[in-house]
Amino acid sequence: MQLNQGPLLYEGKAKKVYRSDKPETVLIEFKNDATAFNAVKHSEFKDKGRLNCQISSYIFEFLIEEGIPTHYLGRLSDTFMIAQNVKIIPLEIVVRNIAAGSLCKQTPIKEGVKLRSPLLDIYYKEDSLGDPLLTDKRLKLLDLISFEQQQEIENLAYEVNTFLIAFFERIDLCLVDFKLEFGMNNNNKIILADEISPDTCRLWDNRSSDPKDRILDKDRFRKDLGGVIEAYGEILKRIQGDFSKSKTSR
Amino acid sequence: MQLNQGPLLYEGKAKKVYRSDKPETVLIEFKNDATAFNAVKHSEFKDKGRLNCQISSYIFEFLIEEGIPTHYLGRLSDTFMIAQNVKIIPLEIVVRNIAAGSLCKQTPIKEGVKLRSPLLDIYYKEDSLGDPLLTDKRLKLLDLISFEQQQEIENLAYEVNTFLIAFFERIDLCLVDFKLEFGMNNNNKIILADEISPDTCRLWDNRSSDPKDRILDKDRFRKDLGGVIEAYGEILKRIQGDFSKSKTSR
Repeated sequence: MQLNQGPLLYEGKAKKVYRSDKPETVLIEFKNDATAFNAVKHSEFKDKGRLNCQISSYIFEFLIEEGIPTHYLGRLSDTFMIAQNVKIIPLEIVVRNIAAGSLCKQTPIKEGVKLRSPLLDIYYKEDSLGDPLLTDKRLKLLDLISFEQQQEIENLAYEVNTFLIAFFERIDLCLVDFKLEFGMNNNNKIILADEISPDTCRLWDNRSSDPKDRILDKDRFRKDLGGVIEAYGEILKRIQGDFSKSKTSR
Repeated sequence: MQLNQGPLLYEGKAKKVYRSDKPETVLIEFKNDATAFNAVKHSEFKDKGRLNCQISSYIFEFLIEEGIPTHYLGRLSDTFMIAQNVKIIPLEIVVRNIAAGSLCKQTPIKEGVKLRSPLLDIYYKEDSLGDPLLTDKRLKLLDLISFEQQQEIENLAYEVNTFLIAFFERIDLCLVDFKLEFGMNNNNKIILADEISPDTCRLWDNRSSDPKDRILDKDRFRKDLGGVIEAYGEILKRIQGDFSKSKTSR
């Protein structure tokens, strides 16, 4: 797809969104910035933009094949994704398979415990409030989406979880939890947006039993474990290996 | 009721619970301690125990007349309440009519805004975790109560809210929000427990329009406004005035 970069529409912590010269189509640039704890911690990692753009692209391609509606339209370059222009719904949908992160600070469930069934948490995407957890009753009060839209988003998120568990399992990665964002496209259809990468997923390496070594996601940055880019690179390498294997087998 | 104080069963931040010489009956001593922000802030106020014990007793008597099942059995002295022994359910049920406190830190709703309908929040009563907000899905995961028990508790809390709004309205107080705790008695019946006082309710004086002066609850302590005991005393005075009026009118 040949597209030209138009004016900047939005700059987030890890991405910039540009208008393109095609209607309803935007260009998303993946930046090298890494932030954590509501941007209190900030750093830059050379090559992170490229790795996340490529990993996200592979995952969106996989999900589209599985029938999930997403904003992904293709890749323009190493760090630029082509996507449908959407109005982002200001919610962060987190699906958890194994207890980690804030869940372990807010419940007595210990890190590493496999949950009986996936837990879905909805957060209000609002930096100034610290992205607070929303109960169903608070979500209703805030009137951001209808009950039917909430059901649709939750169902999609659970489906994505099922697909992604299998996707990562094939390359010896355990999907601990992940964050999704959804948007409304020009036809008022809810579609999966944003990115899916080691910035937004917790991924543990099944080939390692060491509780620090096995971490291959942004927790390496959050917890100052080092080797952030090496971990992200390992994930891309395994995904590419799996994609070329499955292409050969066709 | 004549009862003798037995051994201490439990000491909380604002109350002590003693066994009595009557089966299934405990004595609850209201202390003068005031704590806030998960006990980071602590102080003592002479007479607070007496005021809260008396205010709570009046309110429980009123709610029992309205048909709400509570642990309240009577008062032994100025600071000792007689109550059914219950196993406290480790949840804090907060009902909000007007936005205040943590709701305004976790949503864009501004303090003082009247909510379209009462908002019910459930918190996990666990100091070591900072009493975190629970979504329905997290509550289910923690398996503390059944879905039917949750429905029963929520319905009781909304009923209590309706009764208390009217109760306080009669004495020119606006019930902003309040916290309830429930317990399971010896017959496995869920009943209202704990206390209902200016420590657990936000109450604004309809006779004042000044945003600081109108506060007649623990926010005077949280926000260092002074006059804590005077405010609690004013509430007791109005309740007693109303109770003696309604007795005369019988």
